[in-house]
Amino acid sequence: MTDGSAPGFRTLGELESVAARAVPPSVWAYVQGGAGEERALASNREAFRRRTLRPRVLVDVERLELSTTLLGEPSAAPLFLCPTAYQGLLHPEGECATARAAAGAGLVGVFSTLSTRPLEEIATAAPSGRRWFQLYVQPEFPATAQLVDRAERSGYSAIVLTVDTPVFGIRDRQAEGGSVEASAARGNGPGLQPPPRGPVRSAQGFSVPRGGTLTWETVRQLRSVTRLPVVLKGVATEEDARRAAGLGVRGLVVSNHGGRQLDAARPTLESLPEVVRGAGPDVEVYLDGGVRRGADIVVALALGAKAVGIGRPVLWALAAGGAPGVANLLDLLTTELANVLALTGRRSVREIDGSMLD
Amino acid sequence: MTDGSAPGFRTLGELESVAARAVPPSVWAYVQGGAGEERALASNREAFRRRTLRPRVLVDVERLELSTTLLGEPSAAPLFLCPTAYQGLLHPEGECATARAAAGAGLVGVFSTLSTRPLEEIATAAPSGRRWFQLYVQPEFPATAQLVDRAERSGYSAIVLTVDTPVFGIRDRQAEGGSVEASAARGNGPGLQPPPRGPVRSAQGFSVPRGGTLTWETVRQLRSVTRLPVVLKGVATEEDARRAAGLGVRGLVVSNHGGRQLDAARPTLESLPEVVRGAGPDVEVYLDGGVRRGADIVVALALGAKAVGIGRPVLWALAAGGAPGVANLLDLLTTELANVLALTGRRSVREIDGSMLD
Amino acid sequence: MTDGSAPGFRTLGELESVAARAVPPSVWAYVQGGAGEERALASNREAFRRRTLRPRVLVDVERLELSTTLLGEPSAAPLFLCPTAYQGLLHPEGECATARAAAGAGLVGVFSTLSTRPLEEIATAAPSGRRWFQLYVQPEFPATAQLVDRAERSGYSAIVLTVDTPVFGIRDRQAEGGSVEASAARGNGPGLQPPPRGPVRSAQGFSVPRGGTLTWETVRQLRSVTRLPVVLKGVATEEDARRAAGLGVRGLVVSNHGGRQLDAARPTLESLPEVVRGAGPDVEVYLDGGVRRGADIVVALALGAKAVGIGRPVLWALAAGGAPGVANLLDLLTTELANVLALTGRRSVREIDGSMLD
Amino acid sequence: MTDGSAPGFRTLGELESVAARAVPPSVWAYVQGGAGEERALASNREAFRRRTLRPRVLVDVERLELSTTLLGEPSAAPLFLCPTAYQGLLHPEGECATARAAAGAGLVGVFSTLSTRPLEEIATAAPSGRRWFQLYVQPEFPATAQLVDRAERSGYSAIVLTVDTPVFGIRDRQAEGGSVEASAARGNGPGLQPPPRGPVRSAQGFSVPRGGTLTWETVRQLRSVTRLPVVLKGVATEEDARRAAGLGVRGLVVSNHGGRQLDAARPTLESLPEVVRGAGPDVEVYLDGGVRRGADIVVALALGAKAVGIGRPVLWALAAGGAPGVANLLDLLTTELANVLALTGRRSVREIDGSMLD
Repeated sequence: MTDGSAPGFRTLGELESVAARAVPPSVWAYVQGGAGEERALASNREAFRRRTLRPRVLVDVERLELSTTLLGEPSAAPLFLCPTAYQGLLHPEGECATARAAAGAGLVGVFSTLSTRPLEEIATAAPSGRRWFQLYVQPEFPATAQLVDRAERSGYSAIVLTVDTPVFGIRDRQAEGGSVEASAARGNGPGLQPPPRGPVRSAQGFSVPRGGTLTWETVRQLRSVTRLPVVLKGVATEEDARRAAGLGVRGLVVSNHGGRQLDAARPTLESLPEVVRGAGPDVEVYLDGGVRRGADIVVALALGAKAVGIGRPVLWALAAGGAPGVANLLDLLTTELANVLALTGRRSVREIDGSMLD
Repeated sequence: MTDGSAPGFRTLGELESVAARAVPPSVWAYVQGGAGEERALASNREAFRRRTLRPRVLVDVERLELSTTLLGEPSAAPLFLCPTAYQGLLHPEGECATARAAAGAGLVGVFSTLSTRPLEEIATAAPSGRRWFQLYVQPEFPATAQLVDRAERSGYSAIVLTVDTPVFGIRDRQAEGGSVEASAARGNGPGLQPPPRGPVRSAQGFSVPRGGTLTWETVRQLRSVTRLPVVLKGVATEEDARRAAGLGVRGLVVSNHGGRQLDAARPTLESLPEVVRGAGPDVEVYLDGGVRRGADIVVALALGAKAVGIGRPVLWALAAGGAPGVANLLDLLTTELANVLALTGRRSVREIDGSMLD
Repeated sequence: MTDGSAPGFRTLGELESVAARAVPPSVWAYVQGGAGEERALASNREAFRRRTLRPRVLVDVERLELSTTLLGEPSAAPLFLCPTAYQGLLHPEGECATARAAAGAGLVGVFSTLSTRPLEEIATAAPSGRRWFQLYVQPEFPATAQLVDRAERSGYSAIVLTVDTPVFGIRDRQAEGGSVEASAARGNGPGLQPPPRGPVRSAQGFSVPRGGTLTWETVRQLRSVTRLPVVLKGVATEEDARRAAGLGVRGLVVSNHGGRQLDAARPTLESLPEVVRGAGPDVEVYLDGGVRRGADIVVALALGAKAVGIGRPVLWALAAGGAPGVANLLDLLTTELANVLALTGRRSVREIDGSMLD
Repeated sequence: MTDGSAPGFRTLGELESVAARAVPPSVWAYVQGGAGEERALASNREAFRRRTLRPRVLVDVERLELSTTLLGEPSAAPLFLCPTAYQGLLHPEGECATARAAAGAGLVGVFSTLSTRPLEEIATAAPSGRRWFQLYVQPEFPATAQLVDRAERSGYSAIVLTVDTPVFGIRDRQAEGGSVEASAARGNGPGLQPPPRGPVRSAQGFSVPRGGTLTWETVRQLRSVTRLPVVLKGVATEEDARRAAGLGVRGLVVSNHGGRQLDAARPTLESLPEVVRGAGPDVEVYLDGGVRRGADIVVALALGAKAVGIGRPVLWALAAGGAPGVANLLDLLTTELANVLALTGRRSVREIDGSMLD
């Protein structure tokens, strides 16, 4: 717990229901909603629910080792905080609160181009923490490069390029109910662009205004302007994983953007095995989407993930209790992970392997 | 938008709920209902919901090409408007409104023998549009031939022979609630016959009054009296697809009549692969039944369809907003199709193939 | 319609809901209930719902032939009326009404040992009809033989020995709500015994009072005292089907007693294929349990059944409208069967085969 | 029935609903709840519901033999009473009532280290009964050995070591609603320790205070201090079953602690086959979790179990009716087992084999 008194939430369910009452309905719809009919949103979670574990017994689990490394840096557990945008909608301290809680827990926080606080301020809020910077490419590459440069100077230790958002997905719930997103302040500068809405129809057909700015060439350019390791977020196929590995990418996040982009996307857990195959031994693979329990983390690791990202629950925790709320959440998740290790007879996250699954 | 102000519906769900309030309950039951227990109706949609897509990333999707050809004619997107009967029940302008919206969108409209407006008037309503004529064979072939001749003279460019209706299906919802269908005006002439109800029981057993009028021989006869390409609507097996191809049929619509005929019918998406096999390379295969989202179109094309038909949503849109409503619908569907192409890394509908599916 | 005016029910759902209001709750619970948690009851129906048909098109279906033979006798359609007990609970005329409706429809009625009317009176009620007699073996074989003799003399043309009832199943719904069964009059004589309840626990363990009276030896004995063909009702395995065939049994009803005996029983549709295999070419196989639609009949025939039995719907129809109600039901079922034949491109029930299924 | 008048509950559902009203909500939550989201709790039961039986007919089932042996001792049926803790929460007589009912039914009762009555008193309550002692290892081995010694002197005939509880599982329902467990009196001595909560986080990471006290070495130690057969409760894999067999363990209970430990655990019925394989011919395998019906017992035996354990229903019965309530429950279960044997054509539990399953 980094500051304040411990709020004492006992389950993620409590965090979610307190948060639902703490924020305006339009913000809650923005947080909880997904693309289209919200099939991907639901199926991410269902994919975990279908998996069961084979527990081993009578193992000495007196000491349980959760720590791992992410891109060579230590992490107290195989999980990180996802780069959700506009955290100031949930709590006045926004990303600064999240950063303090992540640092207190020894976990990597990933912060969005579309944060409500400037990336430098987030860094200052928790100087001892490890931070990665999530990048939405900008219409002109110099603006992109400038963001990367700011992140590098502020001590962010990796660039997480989101690749599943050449345009925003179509989100029925937001379309019907109105969106709060546009009115949220952009901490990294008012000129920063989110991914384009669209495609836009014209006399010549459909076009995405900045389609050409998010391609494999972008990855090459990005690598050329930073010494930081580059992670691609939103890869879902073996083919793309292999190509990324060939370009020197260091990590891949199997993600469908929390079910907010392509409603017909596969559950991330089902995409994970082929991405692991394509990534090869030198590229770390992470996963986000629907992770809510300690056992989910174990399942993802058993299928080859190095770590998992936590998205919406961090927003719930922020709304429910600010930095102490997020600390509470991270404590619940890591404690349950330790519990699952003990109950499956694994002393360390390194002992998690495919034999735990049917 | 072809006329009036844009109604601004944001989702198909909005169109459906507005339409539900705009028409009498008996009309709504007629539109929404299906055969029997409505298993086929529900399973058409469920079949799409079970499918997921494998998205590719970092493709330059600045320009997105939705256009294709149907029987050699250009179509702005791989979709067409299904020949639903009695559109005047939904809006006073009926098929004329639909025709204007289809023409405005650059899409083929298929119009029913049982339209509420004469086929000539529909043609005049949108002279620039492409139209196909859906044919219910009449008890006597000369009446059938006369309909075909009228369609040909009015610029319809294909004849879509419905083959899944030797008799009407048994529809519990309509049977229990009464039917509006019989009282709807037949624009193509008061003497025009819908498919027979039945079979009818007599002392000699069950018989279908005009069974003999809808056979493969009918297809041969039809081909002999028109220079227009013939499409069969309602084919669901490889065997029938192969036979149709052998008779010079140019297109097949995999359809179970929107779940209104045989309640035990397979979902059309599950029939599609074998029909594609049977059709061979020279016959175009289309599909209707349950298409509601951009991703559904992609899934059908990935399984071999050349285009998909939109049925009930057009009726919702007609009821909710007339021609502008239908234009709104077509805009939502094509925009979402473009969005799905962008999010799966395909620049053109021609790049859709089986590798997009698991 | 054999007597009275046609009641005009349009669906089985209407019959069921009218019946539910027409009889006392305890009778309704007896009719609708099943064994245990009513898993078998529900799964019988679900098994049909999982099956879909491959329709052929453009077949001349002007004349549709539903008639078949059962044990060499003509039947207007491949269906018969199941031997449900105590039909007098549903309508004062009880089995006599059912017999008249069955005869009027040209279908076999099977009547229970536990009818509320004497078997002779049932025969007299519809002298032109074909009837089979359902036999519950009695504690002493002479009583059994006497029943068979009465049936034979009264013109019943087959004996249907129920074999799935060495004891009654345990029925939670009836156990909790009280049972009407015991108080129903036994038309075939007050001394007639239903199958035993039990097993009964004693100091020596569990025993079924009359276990020894229902064995393969019973079948031999039965065959020795009657010239009528013997049918076994309640066979569910290939092994038992083969043994029955070896003993000269002429027909088998794949049945789980409408889900009233063994709650963990397979759906009858899933047992059908192995029973057909075991029965061989000389033994007819029928099925009951969950048949509610014309397509269900086609599915069962496609899997090898010669005919199907209708159980609870006959009771609904009796309660809702007496003999005219049952006639109405049989008309709905056969008309829908004819409709499904037309819609799947089959001119006769003899053309139903496995190619109709996936 | 061992004492009092028979309460006459007719189904387990009646026992459950009476019990729900008889105890305080916090006790009911403790009894009914499970780990996490209660996936394992629900799936144990669902696994039985997915299984169906192949019934044989025309077998002479006049006498039905339910008796078997457990570790060489006679048991009236292939079932035993699970060692649920703190039975005094449900009824003032607690485990003594259970012991009397078990003895009256000729079944083994397994009693928990965490009983509310001393193990000696439980033995005295039903001196003729067979009892096994469930062991939670204590922080120091001498305390464990002393418990075993007391059980041995009091005539318990086996030691059931629970191995799935190095720590307690995380139970959302209890966490959110408060727990009654801690306040329950420990009959075997106030100093007795339940399994530890945890793991506990410290500066050095997570640790389980007494992890080292529950390992394969514990099994060896236990075997060295008792002549009683040792059974391991909570084994779920072939590997652990094989290792247990190699150490001279005599029985294994496939269990996930009634869904109260690892929420992601497999249903016990799905773990059973591999444990049977690993156990080999000399080690008896039992199963608990979700057994509620006679058919469930048959299914478990058909998959290789020697007997099944009944957990929560015993608590319902205790709360609903004390010892007579439990006797009522055991009568319902064994009577239904006998009924299922009769209806599947098996004269004895020894005739249950894999051919009963699909």
